[in-house]
Amino acid sequence: MSKRSEGPLGSSIGQLLRLPPGPVDLSAIDTNGKPGFEDGKAEGKKALAALGAELAELQERLFAQAYTGASRQRLLLVLQGMDTSGKGGILSHTAGLLDVSGLALKSFKKPTEEELAHDFLWRIERALPAPGEIGIFDRSHYEDVLVVKVHGLAEPDEIERRYTAINVFERKLTDTGTTLVKCMLHVSADEQRKRFLARLDDPTKQWKFKPGDVDERGHWAEYQAAYETALERCNPENAPWYVVPSDRKWYRNWAIAQLLLEHLRALDLQWPTPDYDVAEQRARLGSA
Amino acid sequence: MSKRSEGPLGSSIGQLLRLPPGPVDLSAIDTNGKPGFEDGKAEGKKALAALGAELAELQERLFAQAYTGASRQRLLLVLQGMDTSGKGGILSHTAGLLDVSGLALKSFKKPTEEELAHDFLWRIERALPAPGEIGIFDRSHYEDVLVVKVHGLAEPDEIERRYTAINVFERKLTDTGTTLVKCMLHVSADEQRKRFLARLDDPTKQWKFKPGDVDERGHWAEYQAAYETALERCNPENAPWYVVPSDRKWYRNWAIAQLLLEHLRALDLQWPTPDYDVAEQRARLGSA
Repeated sequence: MSKRSEGPLGSSIGQLLRLPPGPVDLSAIDTNGKPGFEDGKAEGKKALAALGAELAELQERLFAQAYTGASRQRLLLVLQGMDTSGKGGILSHTAGLLDVSGLALKSFKKPTEEELAHDFLWRIERALPAPGEIGIFDRSHYEDVLVVKVHGLAEPDEIERRYTAINVFERKLTDTGTTLVKCMLHVSADEQRKRFLARLDDPTKQWKFKPGDVDERGHWAEYQAAYETALERCNPENAPWYVVPSDRKWYRNWAIAQLLLEHLRALDLQWPTPDYDVAEQRARLGSA
Repeated sequence: MSKRSEGPLGSSIGQLLRLPPGPVDLSAIDTNGKPGFEDGKAEGKKALAALGAELAELQERLFAQAYTGASRQRLLLVLQGMDTSGKGGILSHTAGLLDVSGLALKSFKKPTEEELAHDFLWRIERALPAPGEIGIFDRSHYEDVLVVKVHGLAEPDEIERRYTAINVFERKLTDTGTTLVKCMLHVSADEQRKRFLARLDDPTKQWKFKPGDVDERGHWAEYQAAYETALERCNPENAPWYVVPSDRKWYRNWAIAQLLLEHLRALDLQWPTPDYDVAEQRARLGSA
């Protein structure tokens, strides 16, 4: 059974995690919180599993609508967060509830020479979900105002230009049938340290660690500041940010599944009506 | 617990379903069989779920080896079969046991104008899995000697050329680190009819049906003959065919998961050894 607690004002998870417009202070948002969920880890895992059937059905309706040409709607989940914040965990646990045939997953790495020769949105455009698909971006165009800013990989003027370019780009997406769900997985520096140590201590996880991760961790405050600017500048009503407390993995996995579900429900997806005569086709098969 | 029955000669599922070299008579292979599995549907579903943990771990090892540069191995599952034979079911149930972040799924539709302007293998090359990935082809380059042959969409000489071209292409793949698992999902004409009728009777499945499906069904014998030729001509030791009885969906789903598992086991995948000093990195994090 879904643990969709109604919150003090009958709030949905979307309402509870929605980043309000205006200046952003990430330090004021509890990384260890669990808004909208009253119980603990065991219940959280059960609640996540309980969302699976409805998520899968809505995903199939979305796919069916595009397949029959009834609609061009699609959904794009954008995952951003510091190292270890759990983008991979979302793919394993939350995306695992969905049908892989309707998923379009893209992990953005360090740009290639070819990608760098184009505008920063070029590689993003090429990875957008098709109608009927649920796309998931593991990192995204936001890296171009995050890591790029922290390491000075572009001129300040160019970075400044990008905030507006992102808003224009995302407006185009939402105007043409894409539901954007942008999630910042919010972890504390202390939780990150624990997760890195856990990787180092486990021979089945050591491959995920590289010494450069500790160097990046040294820029923690600069990254938080870059996130605050990006979240403030690119947080319009049509493409808002959700800040998901992520120190508790089970809460993060559940909350994002619940966010997906709320956004899919809002699309009011129906099974397509056949454009053929069912009885006639039955008869053809019967005599086949 | 895995139901990996050992069969009369201690056979693996791979040995039981492997199409022997030589002339192929599909009518001699029971579409309703369940080689290597003694029990029924309920046990089959449990047996499938029981394969999940090992499959996921081997998939992660494969991914980790490529991530660290230790290996360029990858696996490609090729799914072919008549309409309703269950390519979609494999994606939902069998691929659902894997981690989506290591999967590269490609569904091949009717070729576009651009694709038709190139050699038939052009679009296939572009969809191959990267090192560390498990690729799944829902239909494949075999369509170019199946539907193309049945409907005369290419000259006989060109189709003749393609059998050899496919063998050369697949040899290149297996020579360069790709494990090929080619599965023909074998259903009877009667079972297909039942499945089409089930689609017509269910408002949540009517969208999957189109009247053209019945026309295609009218070419059943020609398709079986085209399959027999393709399977015979493109069945070398390095890239053999497995014919999977698919009238029982639960058996089909389990057998393909088991086939994947046997092929992954054979790769002897190990966790990569760190190329950094673990104690040194622990110390850096401790003081961070």
